[in-house]
Amino acid sequence: MYGLIGKMRAKPGQRADLLAILLDGIDSMPGCLSYVVAKDPADADAIWITEVWDNEASHKSSLSLPQVRAAINKAMPMIAGFDSSIPTLPVGGPGLPRMD
Amino acid sequence: MYGLIGKMRAKPGQRADLLAILLDGIDSMPGCLSYVVAKDPADADAIWITEVWDNEASHKSSLSLPQVRAAINKAMPMIAGFDSSIPTLPVGGPGLPRMD
Repeated sequence: MYGLIGKMRAKPGQRADLLAILLDGIDSMPGCLSYVVAKDPADADAIWITEVWDNEASHKSSLSLPQVRAAINKAMPMIAGFDSSIPTLPVGGPGLPRMD
Repeated sequence: MYGLIGKMRAKPGQRADLLAILLDGIDSMPGCLSYVVAKDPADADAIWITEVWDNEASHKSSLSLPQVRAAINKAMPMIAGFDSSIPTLPVGGPGLPRMD
Protein backbone atom coordinates (compact mmCIF):
# COMPACT_ATOMS: atom_id res chain seq x y z
CA MET A 1 0.00 0.00 0.00
CA TYR A 2 0.98 3.61 -0.47
CA GLY A 3 -0.21 6.56 1.59
CA LEU A 4 -0.03 10.32 1.70
CA ILE A 5 -0.62 12.81 4.51
CA GLY A 6 -0.85 16.33 3.13
CA LYS A 7 -1.65 19.79 4.40
CA MET A 8 -3.02 22.29 1.90
CA ARG A 9 -3.67 25.97 2.44
CA ALA A 10 -6.67 27.72 0.88
CA LYS A 11 -6.59 31.37 -0.02
CA PRO A 12 -8.22 33.36 2.83
CA GLY A 13 -11.98 32.77 3.02
CA GLN A 14 -12.01 30.13 0.27
CA ARG A 15 -11.64 26.92 2.29
CA ALA A 16 -15.33 25.93 2.18
CA ASP A 17 -15.48 26.30 -1.61
CA LEU A 18 -12.20 24.44 -2.01
CA LEU A 19 -13.42 21.59 0.21
CA ALA A 20 -16.59 21.19 -1.87
CA ILE A 21 -14.56 20.94 -5.07
CA LEU A 22 -12.16 18.41 -3.56
CA LEU A 23 -15.01 16.20 -2.30
CA ASP A 24 -16.70 16.23 -5.72
CA GLY A 25 -13.50 15.08 -7.43
CA ILE A 26 -12.60 12.03 -5.36
CA ASP A 27 -15.40 9.57 -6.10
CA SER A 28 -14.65 6.32 -7.91
CA MET A 29 -10.86 6.41 -8.01
CA PRO A 30 -9.50 2.92 -8.87
CA GLY A 31 -7.10 1.60 -6.23
CA CYS A 32 -8.15 4.18 -3.63
CA LEU A 33 -8.61 2.38 -0.28
CA SER A 34 -9.18 5.46 1.88
CA TYR A 35 -9.36 9.21 1.24
CA VAL A 36 -10.24 11.63 4.02
CA VAL A 37 -10.62 15.38 3.56
CA ALA A 38 -10.58 17.36 6.82
CA LYS A 39 -10.57 20.89 8.15
CA ASP A 40 -7.87 21.97 10.59
CA PRO A 41 -9.81 23.35 13.58
CA ALA A 42 -6.80 25.47 14.62
CA ASP A 43 -6.22 27.13 11.23
CA ALA A 44 -9.14 28.60 9.23
CA ASP A 45 -7.37 28.17 5.88
CA ALA A 46 -5.83 24.72 6.34
CA ILE A 47 -7.04 21.39 4.92
CA TRP A 48 -5.63 17.95 5.75
CA ILE A 49 -5.88 15.16 3.19
CA THR A 50 -5.00 11.59 4.18
CA GLU A 51 -4.94 8.94 1.46
CA VAL A 52 -4.37 5.18 1.17
CA TRP A 53 -3.85 3.52 -2.22
CA ASP A 54 -3.23 -0.10 -3.16
CA ASN A 55 0.06 1.09 -4.65
CA GLU A 56 1.85 4.25 -5.76
CA ALA A 57 0.97 3.71 -9.43
CA SER A 58 -2.76 3.94 -8.65
CA HIS A 59 -2.21 7.28 -6.96
CA LYS A 60 -0.29 8.59 -9.98
CA SER A 61 -2.95 7.30 -12.38
CA SER A 62 -5.71 9.00 -10.40
CA LEU A 63 -4.26 12.38 -11.31
CA SER A 64 -5.21 11.67 -14.95
CA LEU A 65 -8.85 10.76 -14.24
CA PRO A 66 -11.27 13.25 -15.87
CA GLN A 67 -13.10 14.12 -12.63
CA VAL A 68 -9.82 14.56 -10.77
CA ARG A 69 -8.33 16.74 -13.50
CA ALA A 70 -11.50 18.84 -13.51
CA ALA A 71 -11.34 19.22 -9.73
CA ILE A 72 -7.67 20.18 -9.84
CA ASN A 73 -8.35 22.81 -12.50
CA LYS A 74 -11.20 24.32 -10.49
CA ALA A 75 -9.29 24.12 -7.21
CA MET A 76 -5.94 25.56 -8.30
CA PRO A 77 -6.97 29.24 -8.16
CA MET A 78 -8.21 28.74 -4.57
CA ILE A 79 -5.02 27.08 -3.27
CA ALA A 80 -2.44 29.30 -1.58
CA GLY A 81 0.08 26.50 -1.14
CA PHE A 82 1.03 23.14 0.33
CA ASP A 83 2.51 23.07 3.83
CA SER A 84 3.47 19.40 3.75
CA SER A 85 3.08 16.18 1.80
CA ILE A 86 4.33 13.11 3.62
CA PRO A 87 4.40 9.70 1.91
CA THR A 88 3.61 6.74 4.17
CA LEU A 89 3.55 2.94 3.96
CA PRO A 90 0.21 1.87 5.46
CA VAL A 91 0.34 -1.52 7.17
CA GLY A 92 -3.32 -1.96 8.03
CA GLY A 93 -6.43 -0.87 9.83
CA PRO A 94 -10.12 -1.84 9.79
CA GLY A 95 -11.14 -2.36 6.16
CA LEU A 96 -7.56 -2.42 4.85
CA PRO A 97 -5.44 -5.45 4.00
CA ARG A 98 -2.71 -6.22 6.53
CA MET A 99 0.88 -5.88 5.33
CA ASP A 100 3.07 -6.29 8.44
CA MET B 1 -16.87 13.80 12.71
CA TYR B 2 -13.62 13.99 14.65
CA GLY B 3 -10.18 13.08 13.36
CA LEU B 4 -6.63 12.68 14.55
CA ILE B 5 -3.32 12.65 12.68
CA GLY B 6 -0.54 11.44 14.96
CA LYS B 7 3.13 10.55 14.68
CA MET B 8 4.51 8.07 17.20
CA ARG B 9 8.11 7.05 17.69
CA ALA B 10 9.08 3.47 18.54
CA LYS B 11 12.17 2.68 20.54
CA PRO B 12 14.97 1.75 18.12
CA GLY B 13 14.38 -1.58 16.41
CA GLN B 14 10.92 -2.09 17.95
CA ARG B 15 8.68 -0.58 15.26
CA ALA B 16 7.59 -3.89 13.72
CA ASP B 17 6.56 -5.34 17.09
CA LEU B 18 4.79 -2.10 18.01
CA LEU B 19 2.89 -2.06 14.71
CA ALA B 20 1.66 -5.63 15.27
CA ILE B 21 0.34 -4.73 18.73
CA LEU B 22 -1.38 -1.60 17.43
CA LEU B 23 -3.08 -3.50 14.61
CA ASP B 24 -4.33 -6.19 17.00
CA GLY B 25 -5.91 -3.57 19.27
CA ILE B 26 -7.99 -1.59 16.78
CA ASP B 27 -10.64 -4.05 15.63
CA SER B 28 -14.29 -3.42 16.43
CA MET B 29 -14.12 0.06 17.92
CA PRO B 30 -17.64 1.61 18.03
CA GLY B 31 -17.85 4.91 16.13
CA CYS B 32 -14.55 4.36 14.32
CA LEU B 33 -15.03 5.30 10.65
CA SER B 34 -11.40 4.98 9.54
CA TYR B 35 -8.15 4.01 11.25
CA VAL B 36 -4.92 3.70 9.28
CA VAL B 37 -1.60 2.61 10.77
CA ALA B 38 1.40 3.39 8.56
CA LYS B 39 5.18 3.26 8.56
CA ASP B 40 7.15 6.40 7.75
CA PRO B 41 9.45 5.35 4.87
CA ALA B 42 11.91 8.15 5.74
CA ASP B 43 12.27 7.32 9.45
CA ALA B 44 12.81 3.73 10.63
CA ASP B 45 11.27 4.36 14.05
CA ALA B 46 8.26 6.49 13.09
CA ILE B 47 4.62 5.44 12.81
CA TRP B 48 1.76 7.57 11.48
CA ILE B 49 -1.77 6.95 12.72
CA THR B 50 -4.72 8.65 11.02
CA GLU B 51 -8.17 8.25 12.55
CA VAL B 52 -11.75 9.28 11.79
CA TRP B 53 -14.50 8.93 14.40
CA ASP B 54 -18.19 9.79 14.28
CA ASN B 55 -17.51 12.18 17.16
CA GLU B 56 -14.90 12.98 19.79
CA ALA B 57 -16.73 11.07 22.53
CA SER B 58 -16.38 7.80 20.58
CA HIS B 59 -12.64 8.34 20.38
CA LYS B 60 -12.42 8.94 24.13
CA SER B 61 -14.60 5.89 24.86
CA SER B 62 -12.39 3.68 22.68
CA LEU B 63 -9.51 4.21 25.10
CA SER B 64 -11.50 2.26 27.71
CA LEU B 65 -12.23 -0.77 25.49
CA PRO B 66 -10.58 -3.94 26.87
CA GLN B 67 -8.66 -4.75 23.66
CA VAL B 68 -7.48 -1.15 23.34
CA ARG B 69 -6.37 -1.00 26.99
CA ALA B 70 -4.52 -4.29 26.54
CA ALA B 71 -2.81 -2.97 23.39
CA ILE B 72 -1.82 0.28 25.12
CA ASN B 73 -0.37 -1.65 28.06
CA LYS B 74 1.67 -3.91 25.76
CA ALA B 75 2.73 -1.02 23.51
CA MET B 76 3.80 1.52 26.13
CA PRO B 77 7.25 0.03 26.84
CA MET B 78 8.03 0.12 23.09
CA ILE B 79 7.05 3.77 22.56
CA ALA B 80 9.81 6.37 22.72
CA GLY B 81 7.45 9.31 22.33
CA PHE B 82 4.87 11.21 20.29
CA ASP B 83 6.11 13.73 17.73
CA SER B 84 2.70 15.19 16.96
CA SER B 85 -1.02 14.69 17.48
CA ILE B 86 -3.19 16.94 15.34
CA PRO B 87 -6.98 16.99 15.77
CA THR B 88 -8.97 17.45 12.54
CA LEU B 89 -12.59 17.93 11.49
CA PRO B 90 -13.16 15.46 8.62
CA VAL B 91 -15.71 16.69 6.07
CA GLY B 92 -15.94 13.61 3.85
CA GLY B 93 -14.37 11.13 1.50
CA PRO B 94 -15.42 7.83 -0.09
CA GLY B 95 -17.24 5.78 2.56
CA LEU B 96 -17.64 8.69 4.98
CA PRO B 97 -20.71 10.88 5.51
CA ARG B 98 -20.43 14.35 4.04
CA MET B 99 -20.41 17.27 6.48
CA ASP B 100 -19.61 20.38 4.40
